[in-house]
This record gives sequence, C-alpha cells and structure tokens, in this order.
Amino acid sequence: MPALFHIMTRTRHALEWQVGHAPQLGTPPALFVPATVPGAVQLDWARAQGWPEPAYDPDIGKYRWMEDVFWRYRAVLPDMAASANTRLFFVCGGVDYRYQVSLNGHVLHAQEGMFTPLDIELTGIAQAGDVLEVEVFPAPKSCESGDRVEANQSVKPAVSYEWDFHPRLVPLGIWEDAYLEQRPPAHVRRSEVRYELDEDLSVAHVRCDVFVSHARAGVLQWRLAGPDGAVVIDHTCTPDAPVVAMTANVHRPRLWWPNGQGDQALYTSTLELMDAAGAVIDSKTQRVGFKRVRLVMHPTQWDEPEIQVFPKGRHTSPITVEVNGRRVFAKGANWVSPDIFPGRISRATYEPLLALAHDSHFNMPRCWGGAIVQKESFFDLCDELGLMVWQEFPLACNRYEGTPEYLAVLDRESASIIRRLRGHASLALWCGGNELFNNWSKMTDQDLALRLLNRNCYDLDRERPFLMTSPMPGMAHGGYFFRRDDGAEVYQYFAQSKNTAYTEYGVPGSAGVETLRAIIPAAELWPPRPGTQWTTRHAFGAWQHNSWLDLHTIAHYFGEPATLEQMVEWSQWLQAEGYKAIFEEARRQKPTCAMALNWVLNEPWPTAANNSLVNWPAAPKPAMSAVADSCRNILASARVPKFAWHAGEAFTSEMWLLNDSTEALPAGRVEAWIHVGDTRTQALTWEHSGAAANTNVQGPALRVLLADAPSDRLTLELRWVDHPERNSSYHLRYFATRATAGEKAYRMGGV
Amino acid sequence: MPALFHIMTRTRHALEWQVGHAPQLGTPPALFVPATVPGAVQLDWARAQGWPEPAYDPDIGKYRWMEDVFWRYRAVLPDMAASANTRLFFVCGGVDYRYQVSLNGHVLHAQEGMFTPLDIELTGIAQAGDVLEVEVFPAPKSCESGDRVEANQSVKPAVSYEWDFHPRLVPLGIWEDAYLEQRPPAHVRRSEVRYELDEDLSVAHVRCDVFVSHARAGVLQWRLAGPDGAVVIDHTCTPDAPVVAMTANVHRPRLWWPNGQGDQALYTSTLELMDAAGAVIDSKTQRVGFKRVRLVMHPTQWDEPEIQVFPKGRHTSPITVEVNGRRVFAKGANWVSPDIFPGRISRATYEPLLALAHDSHFNMPRCWGGAIVQKESFFDLCDELGLMVWQEFPLACNRYEGTPEYLAVLDRESASIIRRLRGHASLALWCGGNELFNNWSKMTDQDLALRLLNRNCYDLDRERPFLMTSPMPGMAHGGYFFRRDDGAEVYQYFAQSKNTAYTEYGVPGSAGVETLRAIIPAAELWPPRPGTQWTTRHAFGAWQHNSWLDLHTIAHYFGEPATLEQMVEWSQWLQAEGYKAIFEEARRQKPTCAMALNWVLNEPWPTAANNSLVNWPAAPKPAMSAVADSCRNILASARVPKFAWHAGEAFTSEMWLLNDSTEALPAGRVEAWIHVGDTRTQALTWEHSGAAANTNVQGPALRVLLADAPSDRLTLELRWVDHPERNSSYHLRYFATRATAGEKAYRMGGV
Repeated sequence: MPALFHIMTRTRHALEWQVGHAPQLGTPPALFVPATVPGAVQLDWARAQGWPEPAYDPDIGKYRWMEDVFWRYRAVLPDMAASANTRLFFVCGGVDYRYQVSLNGHVLHAQEGMFTPLDIELTGIAQAGDVLEVEVFPAPKSCESGDRVEANQSVKPAVSYEWDFHPRLVPLGIWEDAYLEQRPPAHVRRSEVRYELDEDLSVAHVRCDVFVSHARAGVLQWRLAGPDGAVVIDHTCTPDAPVVAMTANVHRPRLWWPNGQGDQALYTSTLELMDAAGAVIDSKTQRVGFKRVRLVMHPTQWDEPEIQVFPKGRHTSPITVEVNGRRVFAKGANWVSPDIFPGRISRATYEPLLALAHDSHFNMPRCWGGAIVQKESFFDLCDELGLMVWQEFPLACNRYEGTPEYLAVLDRESASIIRRLRGHASLALWCGGNELFNNWSKMTDQDLALRLLNRNCYDLDRERPFLMTSPMPGMAHGGYFFRRDDGAEVYQYFAQSKNTAYTEYGVPGSAGVETLRAIIPAAELWPPRPGTQWTTRHAFGAWQHNSWLDLHTIAHYFGEPATLEQMVEWSQWLQAEGYKAIFEEARRQKPTCAMALNWVLNEPWPTAANNSLVNWPAAPKPAMSAVADSCRNILASARVPKFAWHAGEAFTSEMWLLNDSTEALPAGRVEAWIHVGDTRTQALTWEHSGAAANTNVQGPALRVLLADAPSDRLTLELRWVDHPERNSSYHLRYFATRATAGEKAYRMGGV
Repeated sequence: MPALFHIMTRTRHALEWQVGHAPQLGTPPALFVPATVPGAVQLDWARAQGWPEPAYDPDIGKYRWMEDVFWRYRAVLPDMAASANTRLFFVCGGVDYRYQVSLNGHVLHAQEGMFTPLDIELTGIAQAGDVLEVEVFPAPKSCESGDRVEANQSVKPAVSYEWDFHPRLVPLGIWEDAYLEQRPPAHVRRSEVRYELDEDLSVAHVRCDVFVSHARAGVLQWRLAGPDGAVVIDHTCTPDAPVVAMTANVHRPRLWWPNGQGDQALYTSTLELMDAAGAVIDSKTQRVGFKRVRLVMHPTQWDEPEIQVFPKGRHTSPITVEVNGRRVFAKGANWVSPDIFPGRISRATYEPLLALAHDSHFNMPRCWGGAIVQKESFFDLCDELGLMVWQEFPLACNRYEGTPEYLAVLDRESASIIRRLRGHASLALWCGGNELFNNWSKMTDQDLALRLLNRNCYDLDRERPFLMTSPMPGMAHGGYFFRRDDGAEVYQYFAQSKNTAYTEYGVPGSAGVETLRAIIPAAELWPPRPGTQWTTRHAFGAWQHNSWLDLHTIAHYFGEPATLEQMVEWSQWLQAEGYKAIFEEARRQKPTCAMALNWVLNEPWPTAANNSLVNWPAAPKPAMSAVADSCRNILASARVPKFAWHAGEAFTSEMWLLNDSTEALPAGRVEAWIHVGDTRTQALTWEHSGAAANTNVQGPALRVLLADAPSDRLTLELRWVDHPERNSSYHLRYFATRATAGEKAYRMGGV
C-alpha cells in the first residue's frame, strides 16, 4: 500500500544538465560542460574555465561574446518507475530569454520571454535515454547601440545591457527550477484563491478556482486556516467538470497590515484532491492575506489654488497609499536584482536584504522596471515582513514601440507575471515601468505597450492600483547627489520641492574599506583614479559628473582625503546625512507628500561607490542605519538648512514631531542640544502639545550663535524626554574658523 | 421568379406602436396613446395631450413626473407572408434606458443601456396577432439630488438631468429604429471591414470579417471600390464555417483627410451573399476611409526648461493631432445633442449644423460626454465633410464609481459604441468623458470605469488614440465669459495662458431677436428679469454670475441697453469679438497649442443666451461667421490687447500671419488700417517674407495714437494685398472721450 500511494502522488525527478554553445541554431556545440540549473550559461562556462567569481572578476568584459551565441542545454531522461496511467511533464519556471525545447531533436515548444513558465507533457512521447534539450537564442537586441536601447523591443530586463551600477553582462539560461514530474492520472492542474473585501472590510468573499485533470477526478477538500490555525472555511465538493469554483465568506477577517501599521495576518489555504477511499492524491497550499490597497489623492489636492482659475487643467495623479482604509506614508527604497545572475538568487539571497528593509522601518520596496521580476521567495518574505511591493513590468528608460511582435510577447509575459504574483498579500501596486514618460524615454499615455499593461492588470487583477509609470504628474525622481551643480544641497532642494511622492532620489556613498580591497587591485587602490577598476566599479564616469565616488563634493566640504579610510569615512558621512535629510524632509511634507523611496537599497554586484544603502551582497553602509532612524514611526526631527557651519555663525533649525503611527502622542518635551567638540549647548526646549495619530507637528525654530571650538563636526541632538527611542541626531560639518565671504558663498549650499 | 426572389431577401415590416404608463412594472397602463418610433415617450404623451412643441413650451416642468413611471410600448404583430424557412427578428437600434422586451407577456430580453442594439429572433415563437411589448423603466437615479449626480451610476447621458443650457427633462423610450425583419435562411448576420496601414501609409492591409447564418450558406463576393468607382479589391469565397475573414491589400490607397487638408476619399465596400445560381440573397455595404490618427507631443515639449532639473516630474499628455503623418491644428467646437429628444434626431437635423461647421473651416467636433453618442448619420456626414470626431463616452462631471453593476453596464455599452463607430473615417479619438479629473468630479487614473474604457478601446479599436478625459495635463477648459471676475478679458487671459490645447472655452451671446420673441412671452420680453422665462431659458442663474445673458458685462462696456435690439446687438458683438480673440490666440500659440474647440457649437433647445454659436435648431449667431473668419487656413491676424479704447490713447496690436495650410506662402504685404467713424488711418505696412507650410509668423506691432472721432466703434482692418480672402477685421469699443484714471482702471481689462 505505501508503495502504491507513493506512485499515485506527484514525484519530481531532477535532471543532469550540460551546456555548450554554437554559432548557429541547430549546430551542435563542440563542447558541453556541466550546468547548474537554475543558473546561467555564463556561470557554467566560467566554472568550467576556472574563472573567478564574476562579482570579483576584474575582467568582466570577457563575458561579452556569450550574448551572441546559441546555447544548448542537454539532459538525458532518467529511468523512472511509473504505473500504467502515470503522466510525465517537463516543468520549468523560466528560461532567459528566447528558446526552444526539443526531445531527440524534435522541437516541442518555442518561446520568447523568461517570465512565462513551461509545463510540457511528455507522456507517451518520452522514455529513458531520450535527450531533452533547451536551445537558448542570443540575447535580444533591437539594434547595435551597445546599451539599454538594445532591449527596447523585448521583455528582457534592460539593466544588464549596462547601467550606472551594473556592468554590461546579459545573463542567459534556465533561471528557474526545471525538472521532470510524474503525476497521477487524477491531479490538480492549477488552483488559486482570490477574494474581494466588502467596502467596510467586514467580509471577505473568498473563491477557490480549481482546474483538475479531468471531470470526476475525485473529491476536493478546501480549507482556509487563520493565522492562529483555526479553520474558517472547510468546503468539500466533487467536481463534475475539469474546472470548479468554490466560494465562501470570511466574516471579520484579520487584515494584513504593512510593517509598522499592524500584524501581517496570513491565512493558509489547503486544497486536497482525494480518491474514493479518502486518500489524498494531490494537494496545493497558498497563503492569503486580506488587505485592500488604493491610491488616493492627498487631502488638499482637489483644492490647490493654482487650479482654481480658468482656463483650468487637471489635478495630479493620486499616489497616497491607503491600506485597509488608512493612509500610510510609504517609506522604503528602490529594489534592484541582488545579483547579476537571476538564476542563482534564492530565498537566502533575499533574507538579509529584506530583513534590513524591515528593520529599517521600511514598508515599501519599489521593484524597479529595469530589473527582473523577483522570484517567489522574495514575495513570500515580503508577505511575512509587511513590505508592500511596488511592482513594475520590465520596461525602463526606453521607448518601447508597440509593434505587433513586441506587444504579443509583452501580453503573454505580463499576464504570466500578474497571474504569478496577484495572490501575494505584499503585492501593493502595478506600474508599467521606470521613467517612461521622461524625455529620455518619450513614451506617453498613448503608447500601446502601456495601454496593454493597463488592460492586463484590469482583466487579471482589477482591484490593485495600476500606474503607467513613475514619475506620474506631481511625483518626482532625483536628484542623485548630495550637492547639485548649482550648489544646492539636498537640504535646500528637497525643502523647496513640493511633490506628491519622491519615488527615486539618491546620495552616493563609497563602499566600505573591506569591499574596496576585495574589488580594487592593491596597486590601484590609492588614490582612486579614472580608468582603473574604480571606473569598472562605477566610481568614475558611471553617470553624470564624477559619479559615483563624487570626490569633488568630498573635497568641497573636507578637502582632499589623505587615506582610503578617510575618504570612505567622509563619503559615507555625506551619504548618511544626505539620506537622513531627504527621508525626513519628505516625511515633513506629509500629507501632500506620501512616499519616500530612495534610489537604491541594494546592488547586483559590489560597486566601489553607489547610491545604494547596502553593498553587495548584503553589507549595510552607515547610511542604512541613519535611514532606519529617519524611518522610525515616531521621532523628533530637525529641518536643518545646510551641511557646513562656521564658528560665529547663527545655527538654525526647525523642530518637528514626525508621527506615522496609529498612536496619538501626548504632550511632552523635546530638547535640542548642540555638540561641537567638548562644548555642549542646550539650544531649545520645546514643550509640545503632542500629535494626533498619523500626523506631524511643526515646532519652534532654534537659533544659536556657534561658539569657537576645535572640532570638524557639529552634532544637533534632539532628545524626546522619557522617550529616548525617539531621539535624533544630525552630524554636520563644522569649521572652527570664521567664514570668509567667499567661503560663505562657496560652501554654504546656498540657492 | 421575381416573387420568389422577393421572399428570399431581407424584408422589413414596420410596427404600429402605442405607449402608456403605469406606476409599477407589470401593471397595464390605463391608457395607450399612439407612439412614434423612433421617438420618446414624452413626445408621444405631449402629442396626445395637445401640448405645445416642448422646445417652445414655457412650462417644461410638466414633464418631470414622466421620469418616474414605467412606460409600456405595445405593438400587434402584422400578418407577414413567409416561405417555409424564413426567419423572423425584432430589430431595434436602441431603447432609452432600462427596459425589457416581452411577447404576449413573456419576457424575451432585459437590458440596461441605450447604446446596445437588439436583434431578437422570433422565428417559431411569434405569429400574427401576438403582442410585442417594450417596457421602459423609470429614468436611472443613483440618489435624489435632482441634478446630474443622479446619473453617476448609469450610462445615461447626464445632460438631461439639467445643465446650464439644458432643462431638466430626461427622455425615455425607443430612440432608434425598431422593426420586424424577415431574413432568408441564408443571410449575412454581420460584416465589418477594417484595415491597418503600413507605417509609411503606402499599403492598406484590409480585412473583411463576415458572420453568415451558417456554414456553406452560399458564395461571398467582396468588392472594394475607390472614390472614383474603380474596383481595387474583388474577392470571392465559399465559407465552410459561419465566420470567415477575407484579406487583401490596397497599394497606395487614397487617404482621407480632414477638412482643409485634402480630400475626404471614401471607398465603398460591397459584400454580397449569393446562392448557387449566382442570385444575390443578401448584401452589406460600408464606406471606408484610409487614415491614421495619432496624438503626439508638440515639437518642443520634451525639452521644456521646467522639467530639466531634479527632482523631475513627467511631461504633459500628447494632444497634437497627427493625421497621415501631418500635424493638423484642430479647430472646431464642442458638440452637444441637437435636440432634447434623441429619438427625433435625423440626418436632416445634423445636416445644417455640420454644414455650418464645415463652412466655418472646422475640422473637429468634440462630442461631449454629457450628451448621447450621436446617430449613424452624424458620422456619415462627418465622413463626408472631413470632420474628425472626438468622441467621448457618456460620462461627465460626476464621480462614476466602479461598482460591479455599473462596470457591467459600462462594459457592454462602451463595447457597443466602439463596435458601431470604429469603421468611420471621421472618428479620430476616444475620450473617457468630460472633466472627470477636475475637482467637481474627483475621478483619477485609478478609477476602474476609465481603466475599463481604456481596456475596451485597446481591445476593440487599438489604433485610435484614447484619452481618459479632457482636460488632461497641459490642456485646459474655460473660461466662459468675455470678462473674468478679476477684470481680465479674453484678450489678456488667453494671451497669458500656455496650454497644449483649449478644448473648451466660451463667450456667451444672446439669441437673436426672432428666437427671443419665440421663447419669451411678450409680457416678459423687455427688460429681461430673473424669475421669468429668461431664467428658464438660461439667461439668468444658469451657472456662475448672471449667465448667460451677462448683462453686467454688456453694461460695463456699453451702459444699459435701451431696447431689446440694442441689447442683442451688443451681446452678440462681444461674443463675436471674444471668440475671434480666443480662436486666433490659440492658433498663434501653435505648435505648443494644438487645438481650439469652443464651448459650444449648438444647443438642444432654444436658449435666450448661451455660449453657443448657433441657436436651436440651426440659426447661426453673428459669432459663427466671426469664428469662421478666424478659422480660415490662411489669414492675417492681430493680437489685440483689449476691447475698449479711448480717444487720445495709443492703440497697439501685434501682427501675425496664421497658416494652417499645406501651402508655403510667398513674401507679400499686409496693411493695417484703423477706422473710427469716418476717420481711416493706415497704421502699418508689413512687408512680410512669407510663411512656411503649416507655420505661423509673428510680425511687427503697430502703435497709433487714437484721434478724437464721434463713434462708439473702432475697427482694425488687416489687408493682405492681392489676397482679400485673407483679410481680417476686429471691431472694438471706442470712447470718443478721454479716459479718466478711474475709467482706465475699471474698463480697460487690466490684469
């Protein structure tokens, strides 16, 4: 009996893969090397050649030719015990990017697009010893520009065609699990739990769609258990058709809340297919989180004065996130792929990064359209951690023209993406892609690609918000430097901006010393110079000016650094304070502003300098903890007007209470202290009268003449009496000398 | 033989309708009166009561109760000769608004929505003497607000719930043709010709989809004949399935151009179904015009300075119309229903109005979302006259919440509208509705209703542009007065606006004396006072201020009028000059600005005053010919700074050449003359160097001290030497007295 039952349930069989390349389709590779699946052809080839780990390889250019050949994976089917009616399938989560699948040289399936999974039945046509092959075409290129424009007619993420933080290296190959699966004659082909919430959130109308192998396949039992394990739905049916929908209501469902706003209540749906004897033949589980997300206007947007006079235009796009009826300020970061090679990303890759995001009080990663749509485990973790995912489709910074060929691939790929992700509690909103309405992309509302994405999201996931792109009207991207060309610092130019959401902005920071030693050869390490590995690792010439090391700005405030360690310290100081200034300024602009998402949390390989808060793979820079402080639900915050101060100058700052919590704060006291060297001055005591839930309060402005003190640093410390967990501090540049007029103009961040 | 052929083709049978009302569904009406179909229950009832024509009825309020009862149409089926296999259908183009169709008391069909036609097979279930009934439900109301808000959960046009130019009168009933049709057993159920043009417009890929009654129904012959009658496609096939698609290419198709840009080349498709003997059993004809319309950005929009600095937002929406690869400035007017009762609109109703539009050099009517989607003959005429139709769905100035019930009706109705109209050459673009993103509507990009409309347009008519609403970012609606509250006149406030399209703006004008005598009782005619028929007819209190008669503005420039005739003259003078100023200013702002569409061309009943250029039914006001002058493809134009001038003042104006034609204009001479009473002064001679095709040229500014002359009028005349058809003149207010300081401030339109 046990043996029989074993055969009667699903059985996976791993395949032993090899891979090789050839200049043409159909030409057998001259050499096959062992392949790791999931993975990438580049990794397999590098391993066979004994090349170093690509993340630390100084010669990343040697991978370039691999884009332009045909790669062939090959596996010999193993011997598999099977009962008479067992069915056999080749299952694959995704192949990057265009490919065909053959059995003994006969093409079974051809596809363009890495996001649509495969499930090919081999029953009756395959036997042990047969050769299964996956032939991968060269990387898609619409032209020979050598940059991201080549990706403008494919659904291949553009980032790998080179970006300011990503080398030119276009991965190819089987990037998701691939295996053989034996299934009993009666099995569940697919099932999905979806729900609709009543307007007042009191009832969830839950529906389980089940596709079984055939009518009268057995008895279906569907159970939904609450976060505490209690079963709230228990439904049995005997389907007389291959498709069946079961429905049930959950009254007063426990709601899923984002990080910092409540629990991440997750229900578990279990679907079992049983035979006549009651034995379980097949089963599916899915986690369900009940939540409703809407994008709404900020409270005063409909009444802004500039649109009250004829001729009148229209309002900006809504971008305030309302979760379960509550407006939630979105705090977080842009997310890019945590590895050049998506095939080697796993839950273990995501865990430390998302833990950092969670612990930094983030509630929203923006999964940027230049990168891949992440793997399931990313969304599983976000479900658990309360991270609301802003998910973009793979379009970024290009004009994706709506040719019939492109639209056909985008249609299928986007539908696959939507179907895969829509069940996740963490998924908050869809977005067409990155910066498509900006003048480097030149797409508009009229573009068929974006209208198609709206159509698919409407048809397949109607209740989730859909944005055509970011930024939409009212929102803004940038800047990406501590100090702008015109001398404006982040302190000033964000205080002067009045946007509804800051969905990208960056302050560059050097990698840590240890990372730098790992990626820059010792001979090139000091001083950093263009044309060396510093350039390869994005310290120079990556984008505008001397990005991303931005030595010019470091020198502006501190002079030339004498050592690597000093340079790293100064760079990271600027990054930490710059990010702190922006995150808190965006929060102070609530409720007009509803989002602060910096560019960028992580990176796909170790850079020497970048806007990232984390060095590859998951090493936080000092800015990460500064940002974590700025994103606490409740804190005392200062609107500091500039970074550099001189002895004798009047130091000023506005005091604020920031409150993103559901808690109304009682009256209390905040003290402002100024530290310069050993000198400690109490600058202000603010007897505040508290703050309503989810509401900030502006307080008094302090003004203190700075005494002379031998120090290069001024620290403004805000102490929330009896609540040290709400204290804040700002570390600013101090000059013990009096400023000359020229210095004032040059260094004071004036606009 | 002839008799047999007669029976073997389609035969229509008119029905004799009666109509009555009852308080409940299912309750038989106490009284039936004769009904005209198409028509409206209100018209039938009024006729039976001997009430006056509603357009002239001073007591329009007596129709109010008719909204809230159930109306029942009844017809007895006539005796119809039929051969054995003849099939019988009840065909109806549309019933306004919710209804059910019954035969002998048995409900055959129930529907909400006036735009989805009916085709109900009665074969075998109906015979002579049976009673066919259409029961019409009360007008849809989501609430009891008494105004347009009641229409916010239906696809019933909102205008009839009361607007500033439309009385409260909600029409109901069978508003399109309704008849019985006998069809031979083999017939064409539906056919449609569509095409795609190559990017370079050199080849049209034409496709004819045919749905026949059954497989092997006969032989299909499809012919497409050019505007000159020459057959360019001649295709025969014998369908072996009930659906067949025939395709053919037309090389170098003659293109359809809008009015003023070229010919309106219309091809004719003829589809014939023939029996084995070659006799024609059934046929369908359709006109086809080959054109491509896109909405594109104006040439410099991607480089506007305000979006060049980080943080950066996004660009405005594209609104420049590109037809067949050529940017065409859109000139025209908003279009509202030409009658309160859509059921009595016919081609004859449209003809004089659209002839006026055409002869005024208009190329675009904006079919405003508050009104119905017009009947076929409207689009037929637009096809012929080169009028590019901006077609909105029936949503206007409301928040249409995306409830499942509303979305279901909107889905079906919008799909019916798209399928009906997409074959028209004149149809230029789809728009979700009127002012939905403004703060009186509060809809946004996130609204499901608009996402649904975008979806349906994408699925059913992908190549036509789709706008969510008007205005979109960059565009503007308003103002609606010659002189704004702050004293700014149209001369100033349009010169200061920088919008990409003016898709609504109005200047009110009195009806002509004859119309006023027809709608205002003699006792109330002079002087006009609120609370009389003047108010009913929108002269007072229709919208803001004393709209639409705007006596205050008349008095401001002219003093109190002594007679009706004088008031009408002054009101119409302001309207004509005001519209002239706006149309020409919008044109001068080309290419940033791409559209000038005034509010409004026509009106649904005779008003005493309105922004309309035409009094109901089709009587042009003087402003119509002024606008026609301003819309000539080529003219000399003056940017006049204000309306009122005093003796002794320096008169100034900028000279322009406006050229919307495809013609490059050679160098020439334009003279500016000023006429005050009998005084004629040549103010300027401009030796211009011509203008490129589709390009305006700014010239010099004239400046002339105004002499004293006994007159109330100053005329600026521009003479294009040797081209009198390009001359322009501007009639302005002149005061023979020197202005006092107070007068200057009060009357000079200063902002």
